[in-house]
Amino acid sequence: MNNLQSKLNYTFKDQNLLKTALTHSSFSNEFGGESYERLEFLGDAVLELVVSDYIYKFGQLDSGLLSKLRAGLVSTAYLKQISQDLGLDRLVFKSKSLQTLSDKTKADLFESLIGAVYLDSGLECAKKIIENLVIVDDQNIRSVIKNCVDYKTKLQETLQKLGKTFEYKLVSDSGLDHDKTFEVELIVDSQVVSKASGKSIHIAQENCAENYLHTLC
Amino acid sequence: MNNLQSKLNYTFKDQNLLKTALTHSSFSNEFGGESYERLEFLGDAVLELVVSDYIYKFGQLDSGLLSKLRAGLVSTAYLKQISQDLGLDRLVFKSKSLQTLSDKTKADLFESLIGAVYLDSGLECAKKIIENLVIVDDQNIRSVIKNCVDYKTKLQETLQKLGKTFEYKLVSDSGLDHDKTFEVELIVDSQVVSKASGKSIHIAQENCAENYLHTLC
Repeated sequence: MNNLQSKLNYTFKDQNLLKTALTHSSFSNEFGGESYERLEFLGDAVLELVVSDYIYKFGQLDSGLLSKLRAGLVSTAYLKQISQDLGLDRLVFKSKSLQTLSDKTKADLFESLIGAVYLDSGLECAKKIIENLVIVDDQNIRSVIKNCVDYKTKLQETLQKLGKTFEYKLVSDSGLDHDKTFEVELIVDSQVVSKASGKSIHIAQENCAENYLHTLC
Repeated sequence: MNNLQSKLNYTFKDQNLLKTALTHSSFSNEFGGESYERLEFLGDAVLELVVSDYIYKFGQLDSGLLSKLRAGLVSTAYLKQISQDLGLDRLVFKSKSLQTLSDKTKADLFESLIGAVYLDSGLECAKKIIENLVIVDDQNIRSVIKNCVDYKTKLQETLQKLGKTFEYKLVSDSGLDHDKTFEVELIVDSQVVSKASGKSIHIAQENCAENYLHTLC
């Protein structure tokens, strides 16, 4: 527990809050006490606000991209890694019969820890921890954008920064009604730069954007 | 605008933020400037945290009920009413071709207003407005619980408070495999208090819980 608090750079005034944050329902069902679910409910909202505030002020990302980026930064896959790095899966109070924790449970434990810090000391302390561990730095945010955002959105972002206009054009559709293939072109500054096909117009456009992005970065 | 600010009991330091909060994309597309979507993204997270914090401290509601209650308090149906009461649909800057606003847009306008207050003056000011208009008082929270929670959860809550044990018992199922009807009983303190049927066990249990709740409140 001391090791965890030193990793967080935060010492709980109320150590019971920390204990609750790490108590799985399999343990509280057996031995009494509260489990982490209520703290996780609260921590989830604290995390969303701190992340939203940060990325809102990160350049002028449009609202669609903001939503995707936030979803990436609070996703189970992303938070379970932080939880593991903190060793929460080894500190958790759980029933012996529960052998391994799911990714979702690991992510939830991190959220409940945030909820506990928020209750213990308020938003600013929770914010520091979130900025340290979730946001990390601007470079990390940029790499999350790369991983979590679809190709069409990324392309739009990139081309807007370059001041270029673009459009997708449907070139052809073929096949029977229930099994069509669509072919689209991506046109940047009046030039066809990429061509791709797919089972829906959207998929064809995604493929088209992906092809072109690979030529750019 | 002055009327709105007096209803909010809040005057914007930066009146441009208020203007952006009320600018629909149909207007900004035509005349330039930013629309409310980014502020709405931020306001949504502010609203979630303030509501979560309040209902977390409202008794000892379990995490399932907390999630449903929060969803009810930030739902489109709930927020669009607040938005209408504030007259946001009459104040919005929109293109003339956009005749009426959808419920979703009305709710979004309220969220963007919250985002704007948060940026203008911080969390405490946004919190006051949310507590005034969204949370209102404990009686309102109790009535939202009544409206947004399913009967089984409500029944569980009620019986736990009364210190009573209960169970649902499947009495029979009849009909063909793809069109079965299930009949269940609700047993409270070893007594059958309600009986109902439905096309799934869950629906039958819901009906059973509803019947019994009507005899209680």
